[in-house]
Amino acid sequence: MRLRGAEKEQRDRDRLPQRRHPAHDSSALLKMALRAMRKARGCQSVIRALHEGPEIAPIPQKDSTKRVFSGIQPTGILHLGNYLGAIESWVKLQDKYNMVLYSIVDLHSLTVPQDPTALRQSIFDMTAALLACGINPEKSILFQQSQVSEHTQLSWILTCMVRLPRLQHLHQWKAKAAQQKHDGMMGLLTYPVLQAADVLSYKSTHIPVGEDQVQHMELVQDLAQGFNKKYGHFFPVPQSILSMCVLVFYPAPMKKVKSLRDPSAKMSKSDPDKLATVRITDSPEEIVNKFRKAVTDFTSEVTYDPGSRGGVSNLVAIHAAVTGLSVEEVVHGSVGIDTAHYKQIVADAVIEKFAPIKSEIEKLKMDKDYLEKILRTGSAKAKELAYPVIQEVKKLVGIL
Amino acid sequence: MRLRGAEKEQRDRDRLPQRRHPAHDSSALLKMALRAMRKARGCQSVIRALHEGPEIAPIPQKDSTKRVFSGIQPTGILHLGNYLGAIESWVKLQDKYNMVLYSIVDLHSLTVPQDPTALRQSIFDMTAALLACGINPEKSILFQQSQVSEHTQLSWILTCMVRLPRLQHLHQWKAKAAQQKHDGMMGLLTYPVLQAADVLSYKSTHIPVGEDQVQHMELVQDLAQGFNKKYGHFFPVPQSILSMCVLVFYPAPMKKVKSLRDPSAKMSKSDPDKLATVRITDSPEEIVNKFRKAVTDFTSEVTYDPGSRGGVSNLVAIHAAVTGLSVEEVVHGSVGIDTAHYKQIVADAVIEKFAPIKSEIEKLKMDKDYLEKILRTGSAKAKELAYPVIQEVKKLVGIL
Repeated sequence: MRLRGAEKEQRDRDRLPQRRHPAHDSSALLKMALRAMRKARGCQSVIRALHEGPEIAPIPQKDSTKRVFSGIQPTGILHLGNYLGAIESWVKLQDKYNMVLYSIVDLHSLTVPQDPTALRQSIFDMTAALLACGINPEKSILFQQSQVSEHTQLSWILTCMVRLPRLQHLHQWKAKAAQQKHDGMMGLLTYPVLQAADVLSYKSTHIPVGEDQVQHMELVQDLAQGFNKKYGHFFPVPQSILSMCVLVFYPAPMKKVKSLRDPSAKMSKSDPDKLATVRITDSPEEIVNKFRKAVTDFTSEVTYDPGSRGGVSNLVAIHAAVTGLSVEEVVHGSVGIDTAHYKQIVADAVIEKFAPIKSEIEKLKMDKDYLEKILRTGSAKAKELAYPVIQEVKKLVGIL
Repeated sequence: MRLRGAEKEQRDRDRLPQRRHPAHDSSALLKMALRAMRKARGCQSVIRALHEGPEIAPIPQKDSTKRVFSGIQPTGILHLGNYLGAIESWVKLQDKYNMVLYSIVDLHSLTVPQDPTALRQSIFDMTAALLACGINPEKSILFQQSQVSEHTQLSWILTCMVRLPRLQHLHQWKAKAAQQKHDGMMGLLTYPVLQAADVLSYKSTHIPVGEDQVQHMELVQDLAQGFNKKYGHFFPVPQSILSMCVLVFYPAPMKKVKSLRDPSAKMSKSDPDKLATVRITDSPEEIVNKFRKAVTDFTSEVTYDPGSRGGVSNLVAIHAAVTGLSVEEVVHGSVGIDTAHYKQIVADAVIEKFAPIKSEIEKLKMDKDYLEKILRTGSAKAKELAYPVIQEVKKLVGIL
């Protein structure tokens, strides 16, 4: 097994907060440790009650009753937003569940025009980035969507179960179609059905989803229920993973990292303002520059108030997330520091967080054969799971 | 190889018209033979010119430069309309081309609600019917669409290349969606894209299509051209097979068999009037009854004038098609016969045409293992052709 620096770093960080902030004294550490223990105890008792297991469970066992699925498009480099919003919790979920699938959803990338050479490269780059962030092919199934033909097969069957207006009313279609000349492409309209097929091909029970995916999550649930109603109970109705008690174990992931240039907007890879988004692969100079130019306000104090002080609150949230401290601890430790100085502190924290990941990405990108092998092996494992599901589906609908 | 009665019957009929109509004397036979020879000579010279082959080609060679694809939905029993309109020419195309694919397009059936058990049965029934009509798995590839996952994979890629309004403007969507409550299902909207994928998965060059498929044929051509424009020449742009000189060899297939109850409408399996459609599996009594109740007009004479005498002209056309005679010969032979008597003559001709096919269907339906094997073998052959095509497509778009 390859040694993955970022993964080790991740594991260490899960045990105790790593970075020593100026305000980080031993009493704060003690408080955090006690809080983490309380949380863990509370959640274990819930799990015990649910599973009627032994009264004392010193090492939490992996949950084998649930199947977790999530996907990420290969295009665009991972940034702070999807790292803190999704990938960090993906890494943690690997230790919690026996069956965890992460798909590089290249077919979804085709819903907007792509340069074939760049797309091909981006599949490798995303694989390298996910591995460097701590996705471990020994613990989860990391695979390429287009290599598992069951996705499009199920997608067709589900396409026959959904009506046009239902898809036309989805926010993302309305927003994205409006950006395309001459009305939207069909891929953009129907991709939420392919998303449903992605999830249901593995009879997944839980999906880590972002807030912007709530409507699509409802579609997945409706399609699962609609299928069950018509053909008898077959699919579990997948749940959003954010609602699960499991995440009490860990600091809750940031719901939305905001753009550094417009704190009312989400940080996005496609932001035309290059200063808005911090990429994992940015150089330290670029990161410092982006934070220096981050939009804040005319108050120099560091406080957390997302309603009225969106800019500085975003910095506080990022700072807390990358250091593993709480928002209160971060604010407390920043008393007397002005926002200009604080931007440098946050930039440093981000640079330190990304440094080992960045160097691991560079290493992995040199070894294309290894990346190819990872995807091939993962896709074969995924196919092994999806094939019997789709065979059953075919039998149920009457074509097998 | 199994002996297939209908196929033998078909081959015999191709040499000389079989059925001896009362008006059928030896001079008419001679005329027909001479005409057939003239047509064959004409066509051979065209083919020679195209291929620069030897000046005299006593046995026409199979054309290996073209790939023919066509599909039929499994639901509904074959009727006179699709037998004369399509299946008869499918049988002939097998002898003309090296690569001929006929697909039982079960995924298309899912665009309207289906009972799973009935659908499953209908896949076997359609296989039996096609074999009984003369589709020969040694000469063509007879397969089940859903067993070749390349179709839905390519369909997704093509879905990302077509715009919503393009599909919304197709006649069939407008007509079918209007029949469904609460607007149409997505499957019904997007199935022309799956049709395009069906065809292009084999880089097909020629498609036998009905007149009602002209718009869908244009879509296939546009998608092939659109793909080639974006990714470099890859797909041949498929042509409708009706425009090819090959069919000069044979009596042109009937373009549209009309409903027996409404000569302005096409004969259709879904006609709510059970008397409108003659099924291959109808009993002789049912066939006689349906023709007896066929809508004609108040003129008792048998003439061919589709414009003003749709009903009787439809009977004449059916009569000519099932006997292999020309329309003129049929009309000439029916001088002095009133339409009531003529209906019985046509019914008899249809009964005689269908009798061997019907009995072969019954035999084949008893041997489900054989039918399953035919589909499995055919689907494996089809996959062998489609797989490298889709691999190439994936490379071209950048996901492989």
